[in-house]
Amino acid sequence: MSILAVGSIAFDSIATPAGRAENVLGGSATYFSLAASYFTDVRVVAVVGEDFTAENEQVLTKRGVDTRGIEHAKGKTFRWGGQYLENLNEAKTDFTDLNVFENFQPRIPAEYRDSQFLFLGNIHPSLQAAVRHEMDGVQLTGGDTMNFWIQGSRKELMETLKLVNVLLINDGEAKMLAGEKNLPRAAQKVLSLGPQALVIKHGEYGATIFFREGAFGIGRHPFRAPALPIEEVKDPTGAGDSFAGGFMGYIASQEQLNREVLKRALFYGGVMGSFAVERFGTERMQSLTREEIEARFQVFRELTHLE
Amino acid sequence: MSILAVGSIAFDSIATPAGRAENVLGGSATYFSLAASYFTDVRVVAVVGEDFTAENEQVLTKRGVDTRGIEHAKGKTFRWGGQYLENLNEAKTDFTDLNVFENFQPRIPAEYRDSQFLFLGNIHPSLQAAVRHEMDGVQLTGGDTMNFWIQGSRKELMETLKLVNVLLINDGEAKMLAGEKNLPRAAQKVLSLGPQALVIKHGEYGATIFFREGAFGIGRHPFRAPALPIEEVKDPTGAGDSFAGGFMGYIASQEQLNREVLKRALFYGGVMGSFAVERFGTERMQSLTREEIEARFQVFRELTHLE
Repeated sequence: MSILAVGSIAFDSIATPAGRAENVLGGSATYFSLAASYFTDVRVVAVVGEDFTAENEQVLTKRGVDTRGIEHAKGKTFRWGGQYLENLNEAKTDFTDLNVFENFQPRIPAEYRDSQFLFLGNIHPSLQAAVRHEMDGVQLTGGDTMNFWIQGSRKELMETLKLVNVLLINDGEAKMLAGEKNLPRAAQKVLSLGPQALVIKHGEYGATIFFREGAFGIGRHPFRAPALPIEEVKDPTGAGDSFAGGFMGYIASQEQLNREVLKRALFYGGVMGSFAVERFGTERMQSLTREEIEARFQVFRELTHLE
Repeated sequence: MSILAVGSIAFDSIATPAGRAENVLGGSATYFSLAASYFTDVRVVAVVGEDFTAENEQVLTKRGVDTRGIEHAKGKTFRWGGQYLENLNEAKTDFTDLNVFENFQPRIPAEYRDSQFLFLGNIHPSLQAAVRHEMDGVQLTGGDTMNFWIQGSRKELMETLKLVNVLLINDGEAKMLAGEKNLPRAAQKVLSLGPQALVIKHGEYGATIFFREGAFGIGRHPFRAPALPIEEVKDPTGAGDSFAGGFMGYIASQEQLNREVLKRALFYGGVMGSFAVERFGTERMQSLTREEIEARFQVFRELTHLE
């Protein structure tokens, strides 16, 4: 089945303890689409500027991603600069040049309308809601957001949360969104705002999925997927979007939609996030094989598996 | 088989968002012994003052803990006051009155000499080493330490680390001990200092055990046990010592000593830590049943178990 992904395409300039990269292809839609492309058909809606080359686009099309929804606007592509020199878990932003992304109005090509799954990347909640309304036939909608919208566009975000089936955010975002420091209590509050399931990403500690009572089947407890302790983190940029791509991509590849599938999807999310950080930019996300993905899935599984 | 535990007995005064408790029985040896007592025979070496009552001692003896190694000294028992009002993950110390603990010289009763397992609670590394030398027939030694010794008694600690088979510390302590921010690299450095296995406790995210190559069997990867997301944390005091008690207690209850046993022990550590925080002081550690422990073990297992 196919996923429609809406988000950003950017050129990133990144500094980490392992080195630097200038103007490498990035953005939430890019990482998400590449990660999901190993599992299912992906269609992308985003905006780029005149500096976005045919070679850039081939990074996506080579992986089979449908790029007909990428709008080519006058001006420059979104550029972001950040560093992880002191803390690999949190980017320090050097600059954000929104450029053509500032006036992004997602337009969904007619050929994308039959997508069964939708992923709303981290863009303004009102834009997320507009896309979701246009795609009201989808089976499942995943969504991301960030502190910037939680604080600055809370009202709009509350409306969007009612339209999202699975929200994927990190610990800090969940606590801020709920106004609650205790994580399981924060999760319950967020679930009461709309989503049937909430994935909270813990960085190097993995991720937990919390379910609304009765959602996606029966069960009393949340579920946690570990992350592999990684010795060489080259570049954390895009780990969260790659996680979302693995998570949503695996779900879209399955015939059933139940808790067991969501649990496995949580493992695949962690797997794709762990690959993303091994190289700068999208390099690793471009060059994977399904065999490598399955092998790491087994490692993740063994990481917590008791005989 | 039996475990000899050396550590502190204290009266704690604790403030948390859930309430307060004054002068409740605590200390590393107390939490450890109670938690381990659900799995195996426990003998304790510690020091108390004249304010330590027969009723206090019965908390331990009721659980079958052998208290003949508790020295009754002139003066007052160690007292600690701390609060978790702003952060449940880290205590803010209000006061530390070492009292009789200041001149603690562990003395091991003759009846304890045949103990097969040893746990060196968080005391001065030189005292830990002295006890370990006296008990040189043990099968396995577990040990704990803290930032105070890592910074202030590094040389002595390095000697002790050579005598410990399994070290149990938290993320911050591991990074400080190794002088390395990346956790798996820090783990490798700590393992090179002596221990065959290193348990790193991640608080609400569970714990990871790292093995030296070839230690306790074969395997390339570390192992991670999750922690149950707990909505009501009443009092985090003693969670780490209860974790150690569950971990060491389970190991001592098994006939074999291999990686599979250590993995299960990591789960039992998490189980006992999760019980400890449900009530103030040692209340929950006094009143458990083996059935409750097994039921929670299953919950922890399901938390990361894929079909």
